[in-house]
Amino acid sequence: MLLIATRNKHKFEEIKRFVPDGIQVVSLADLGINLEVEEDGESFVQNSIKKAVFYGNMTKMKVIADDSGLVIDALNGFPGVHSARFMKDYDYKEKMMVILKMMEKKEERFARFVCAATYYDPVGNIIICCEEKVEGTLAYEIRGSEGFGYDPIFIPNGYDKTFGEMGEEKHKISHRYKAFTKLFSLLRAIIFDK
Amino acid sequence: MLLIATRNKHKFEEIKRFVPDGIQVVSLADLGINLEVEEDGESFVQNSIKKAVFYGNMTKMKVIADDSGLVIDALNGFPGVHSARFMKDYDYKEKMMVILKMMEKKEERFARFVCAATYYDPVGNIIICCEEKVEGTLAYEIRGSEGFGYDPIFIPNGYDKTFGEMGEEKHKISHRYKAFTKLFSLLRAIIFDK
Repeated sequence: MLLIATRNKHKFEEIKRFVPDGIQVVSLADLGINLEVEEDGESFVQNSIKKAVFYGNMTKMKVIADDSGLVIDALNGFPGVHSARFMKDYDYKEKMMVILKMMEKKEERFARFVCAATYYDPVGNIIICCEEKVEGTLAYEIRGSEGFGYDPIFIPNGYDKTFGEMGEEKHKISHRYKAFTKLFSLLRAIIFDK
Repeated sequence: MLLIATRNKHKFEEIKRFVPDGIQVVSLADLGINLEVEEDGESFVQNSIKKAVFYGNMTKMKVIADDSGLVIDALNGFPGVHSARFMKDYDYKEKMMVILKMMEKKEERFARFVCAATYYDPVGNIIICCEEKVEGTLAYEIRGSEGFGYDPIFIPNGYDKTFGEMGEEKHKISHRYKAFTKLFSLLRAIIFDK
């Protein structure tokens, strides 16, 4: 039994698809946990580990957690680790419109999605964290309604669609796919086979 | 090639003995690195990861780091994560004398040594961290000159000698032995065999 430590329903569904067959997962909502962790770390890795350790110590369950965000070169990495906190009380459509406004005059549109995926076993006292990214560029307008978060303004390299226009295809190339695939391949080797 | 990210010569020698045969290690001193990381985390795990990530990103080498300390129940966990920072400019004999003074009237003398051992691969973007502890009691006086740090005032459960009186025996039961043995057994499964 593995706790996927997110309060974001979209993220829960996305992570669930990367969990190997035969491992049962539950969400924070399933456990009735409403407590939020302050994501005040300086890096995706720090926030991801902080979340996993917090919910793992609370529940004594094995946990996976994720911290991810959009990093835009022309904005010195903004919103980055602030991706969720930025305009916290607004929806993503409004957040994306502000980002597009900030990028209006910018020709350099390099951006990347970064994901830090963490496993924490509070009994074995083991933390494993992998960080992965997918490179791309920032779109000029909001395109597509698939995915969640900043997906509709991010075009991965080698594609002309945004993550928001991609559907299933996204889950074969995304930052979250790469981070969790690596994490589970490490876990398979050391944990699940024993 | 593995960087053991400590500036403490004793700790370097201790960790080196837990590294599996065939893996070459270097120290920060070997690389001429004098920069210090501020150990300002709230836990051994945080400090250990902070050190590993700092020196790994600096050198692009695979790194192992450790953060460890003595946790005394009757002092609400003190010195704990402050073990190194506490009376930083004094030597350990003076630090231990102050601790013994603080413990003079205390009958409950439960204490434990805790070690968080971290591996960081800055190219693969993988962090693995294990925390282990050894339970024991606080001695009434400084005993023995083996080991380092607070070793001469810590008596592990099941023994009547302090770590400072133990020599080789310590390295079969210590917090550092347990944490690094676990860490290397995880690493053997996922990294070194491939």
